[in-house]
Amino acid sequence: MRTVNLNGIFPPVTTPFTDRGDVDYDALASNISRYNESSLAGYVALGSNGEVVHLNTDERRKAIAIIKRAATSTHTIVGGVNELSTHAAIDEAKAAADCGADAALVITPYYYKSSMTQEAFTRHFNEVADRSPIPVLIYNVPANTGVVIDSATIAGLASHQNIIGVKDSSGNMAAISETISLSPAGFSVMAGNGGILYPALSMGATGAVLALACAAPRACCELYDAVKANDHSRARELQHRLAPLSHIVTAGLGVPGLKAAMNFLGLKGGVPRAPLSALGEADTQRVKAVIRKTGLFPEIE
Amino acid sequence: MRTVNLNGIFPPVTTPFTDRGDVDYDALASNISRYNESSLAGYVALGSNGEVVHLNTDERRKAIAIIKRAATSTHTIVGGVNELSTHAAIDEAKAAADCGADAALVITPYYYKSSMTQEAFTRHFNEVADRSPIPVLIYNVPANTGVVIDSATIAGLASHQNIIGVKDSSGNMAAISETISLSPAGFSVMAGNGGILYPALSMGATGAVLALACAAPRACCELYDAVKANDHSRARELQHRLAPLSHIVTAGLGVPGLKAAMNFLGLKGGVPRAPLSALGEADTQRVKAVIRKTGLFPEIE
Amino acid sequence: MRTVNLNGIFPPVTTPFTDRGDVDYDALASNISRYNESSLAGYVALGSNGEVVHLNTDERRKAIAIIKRAATSTHTIVGGVNELSTHAAIDEAKAAADCGADAALVITPYYYKSSMTQEAFTRHFNEVADRSPIPVLIYNVPANTGVVIDSATIAGLASHQNIIGVKDSSGNMAAISETISLSPAGFSVMAGNGGILYPALSMGATGAVLALACAAPRACCELYDAVKANDHSRARELQHRLAPLSHIVTAGLGVPGLKAAMNFLGLKGGVPRAPLSALGEADTQRVKAVIRKTGLFPEIE
Amino acid sequence: MRTVNLNGIFPPVTTPFTDRGDVDYDALASNISRYNESSLAGYVALGSNGEVVHLNTDERRKAIAIIKRAATSTHTIVGGVNELSTHAAIDEAKAAADCGADAALVITPYYYKSSMTQEAFTRHFNEVADRSPIPVLIYNVPANTGVVIDSATIAGLASHQNIIGVKDSSGNMAAISETISLSPAGFSVMAGNGGILYPALSMGATGAVLALACAAPRACCELYDAVKANDHSRARELQHRLAPLSHIVTAGLGVPGLKAAMNFLGLKGGVPRAPLSALGEADTQRVKAVIRKTGLFPEIE
Repeated sequence: MRTVNLNGIFPPVTTPFTDRGDVDYDALASNISRYNESSLAGYVALGSNGEVVHLNTDERRKAIAIIKRAATSTHTIVGGVNELSTHAAIDEAKAAADCGADAALVITPYYYKSSMTQEAFTRHFNEVADRSPIPVLIYNVPANTGVVIDSATIAGLASHQNIIGVKDSSGNMAAISETISLSPAGFSVMAGNGGILYPALSMGATGAVLALACAAPRACCELYDAVKANDHSRARELQHRLAPLSHIVTAGLGVPGLKAAMNFLGLKGGVPRAPLSALGEADTQRVKAVIRKTGLFPEIE
Repeated sequence: MRTVNLNGIFPPVTTPFTDRGDVDYDALASNISRYNESSLAGYVALGSNGEVVHLNTDERRKAIAIIKRAATSTHTIVGGVNELSTHAAIDEAKAAADCGADAALVITPYYYKSSMTQEAFTRHFNEVADRSPIPVLIYNVPANTGVVIDSATIAGLASHQNIIGVKDSSGNMAAISETISLSPAGFSVMAGNGGILYPALSMGATGAVLALACAAPRACCELYDAVKANDHSRARELQHRLAPLSHIVTAGLGVPGLKAAMNFLGLKGGVPRAPLSALGEADTQRVKAVIRKTGLFPEIE
Repeated sequence: MRTVNLNGIFPPVTTPFTDRGDVDYDALASNISRYNESSLAGYVALGSNGEVVHLNTDERRKAIAIIKRAATSTHTIVGGVNELSTHAAIDEAKAAADCGADAALVITPYYYKSSMTQEAFTRHFNEVADRSPIPVLIYNVPANTGVVIDSATIAGLASHQNIIGVKDSSGNMAAISETISLSPAGFSVMAGNGGILYPALSMGATGAVLALACAAPRACCELYDAVKANDHSRARELQHRLAPLSHIVTAGLGVPGLKAAMNFLGLKGGVPRAPLSALGEADTQRVKAVIRKTGLFPEIE
Repeated sequence: MRTVNLNGIFPPVTTPFTDRGDVDYDALASNISRYNESSLAGYVALGSNGEVVHLNTDERRKAIAIIKRAATSTHTIVGGVNELSTHAAIDEAKAAADCGADAALVITPYYYKSSMTQEAFTRHFNEVADRSPIPVLIYNVPANTGVVIDSATIAGLASHQNIIGVKDSSGNMAAISETISLSPAGFSVMAGNGGILYPALSMGATGAVLALACAAPRACCELYDAVKANDHSRARELQHRLAPLSHIVTAGLGVPGLKAAMNFLGLKGGVPRAPLSALGEADTQRVKAVIRKTGLFPEIE
């Protein structure tokens, strides 16, 4: 069952909105076409950077379908599931499968934080995995959720045959290493944070889902390839060049920063939905300066 | 426009589920009938304790309608709005109005935490208030959201004529006092935490929305009345008696603890939805012991 | 043994430094003389606001002695003990006693945070109390220490006959109430945070140790007296007036803010020691504006 | 001036105490003799693991001197400075120099957390470096201090010719990478956390100061050498083997855990000083099991 390819770089695809606030599906398809020119392993639809929490049911369905159609047959399509109840997570995993997703990226429930024990996470993911028609990836993203699933819990869940990996966006390098150590062969540990891409790959992460890859897919793939080729010197150099860009499109300025970076780089970032707001002029200039300083984008020179 | 009565105690009504996991609307109506015997000022539907994040659209609509119907005409009905985008919050406020709510309790957006600046909150609440057909209460609940709206921001929003108050569940007594100081007369500051009910009322809070009031409505109302009657000695005594119960049904054991307390007290708590789970036997006994120790429930002696 | 009077308001006396950085003992004595004009219950030497962590052994000894001498015979003198090891805390408590302190305010150890379990606190305070020649007050100040001693732990320690109270600067009103509930009669729970002075007193706190009282001793005493006289309306009003000043001299601008406030009010605040630094002009003006706005200092009008 | 060798592995030497609680200087010297058999670059005296905060002035002086004498002439001796005021930090740096230290590891001040801005850190370290007779290393250890010095601040301080490096124990891999990127050539960034030793070295850290190295000096040096030899496969394997031991002697069980590990491995760990306490039997067995599982200590097989 675990035949979904998670080796490589996945952008958590952003959702472009028109100025009127509607989803711009043509722009979404256009971005995927551009991304297809890089050696990305696949696409994550409906992640945090896809503003899944700002989309209604129909928009979520259609976004997966559009991405699936615009991707090539070799790309793995992962559908994000951002739900707070177990039953809704199951329903969304089924819907993602219906829309063509190869796997579901299921977030840790995060509302009743004091009740979200490791036992609660174990029950939740096992129940979702029991009923999901497609394999499940665990999604750990404490910056957004305020909760953390432990390495030992993840490793325990890895024995479920329908749970095939984890995307860990904690930035906690020691914890990611521990998850790699504890989980069985074939379980994919994916870095979720561009600031530690090379370190995570050097410790054995199988791939990565990175906001950074929405703006810099080619460079992320080059870094991945360098590690695979055992060219640590090149990987380190790329990591140092990319880190400031990774930071500004995540912790620094968030989704609005990522969309501004994409706009500058000729992709269709568009604007975010409220309560997020488009960057002001000063922040936009900061993003541009960071991009220029990487020295990795000949197209803007 | 600000004629909604928010003076007094409001339980954030829980949602009973059957063992099969369906909403038990009859049980919900039955609880309201019981609550009607106390001098509660009204009911909050679809709050955190109502497991709003575990309910689908239809269930949310119906829950408000049932509560509205079971309440008396003098009760204020507040509909909870737990949405992460501005547009969805507006839609839910409209739906709450359609179902009979007198006001909407709108949570601070909480997903993109690093982007949730005070400016973002200001934009969000002003936009929702502009378009909501019913007055808006701001809902600050850091334990669940991981974000905090400041007293100054709340006071600024109080100048919007469709924003009539705040429910502050932070437990931060100094901040709640500051909000009371900074906001204009007529703006309702409601305590959201039973552990500081008397202190908050003594500082000028106009009312309270308390998980505690779902289990102990009569005692909460008695405490409120004691403060109004300037009987601080009695208010303090009740506060000391009620605090351990308040703690165990919130930070201590959460919604499962509250439902267990209600079951013990002859109300229809039922069980929570996953990923929450019903208390085990040991925790259930702890809840019962805490209830007995209050000395405030002759019905269980 | 528990005959130390802790009922009332205590300023945690600041340590004035000359521009050259030496302790200005004359200024210290002068401040105490001024404070003696209010109805303060006593003085805390070597607290956080006294910059105990910036003083060497000789300076600490002398500061207590000067305060003792400048106070009247009815004032209770509390000596702060800010040590990270149990043996040093014992030594400092002895030294404080030798210098004339009536009680020792012993901070929770705070360096090895992950090892500072409630059991470790229990051992520490029991050992210190066993060997201290003067009664011990527990000092909980999470904003500085990053650790929290629980209400249950404090209540357990209250059975030691040489532990007579706690100064709780957490600002956690529910926890302070719980400590009051759980601890035996005669055990003093002292508020350590001006932002909740009235609420804490209304719940049964026996007194308070407040940075605010270094700047506004008379108003703090008036508030205390109002609560004792059951004049809750006056107490509430004073609380609302004083809270912004309390905030700016603690969480807002810290010790530098407090010293600026004292300087403005005719006390000898002086400047702090590095790494703290004196306020710049803009912040000094903010402090002055906050003081004026209280309407409680006719001397500056 | 920057000729102090910081390339390689440094154990932050523990301080053995006798059962009566006195420093056991013979045991200390004995440990250094054992350590001298590995290819360690030097020794850090008076770090967090050295329980510097539990030592009095004389003990601190003597500990440095003993370590200096027991080390070889090629070892770099770093003296820890754990002081809360700038003037005391300067005094301690001078004392460390007098006792033979080649450099001073100066902790970020951490008591008045809300005043510890990046500007305050900049002033503090510049003043200490101006007056210290030996070069200064910045010490960032948020788990103990609750404060964080930023990469940009560190990089700014790197322009002071008497500030030669940083020991970063945050475990924040992205921040450590950023510090490496931003700081000039010749500035030493030292990992302070065994859980990320290989990742940090692979990103360009020049060395490491690790509790882990007190228990497993040889294995840490082997990992360091593997990275230098570009043998990433071996480095990764050692990292995975060592990580659980690193965790249990730091975040897991702290200094008591480290001392238990040393005792088991034939070093003289002894017991910690209160408020720390020696491990109980169950935790001691856990430590032994973790050590055995590494497969890296033939001496205990």
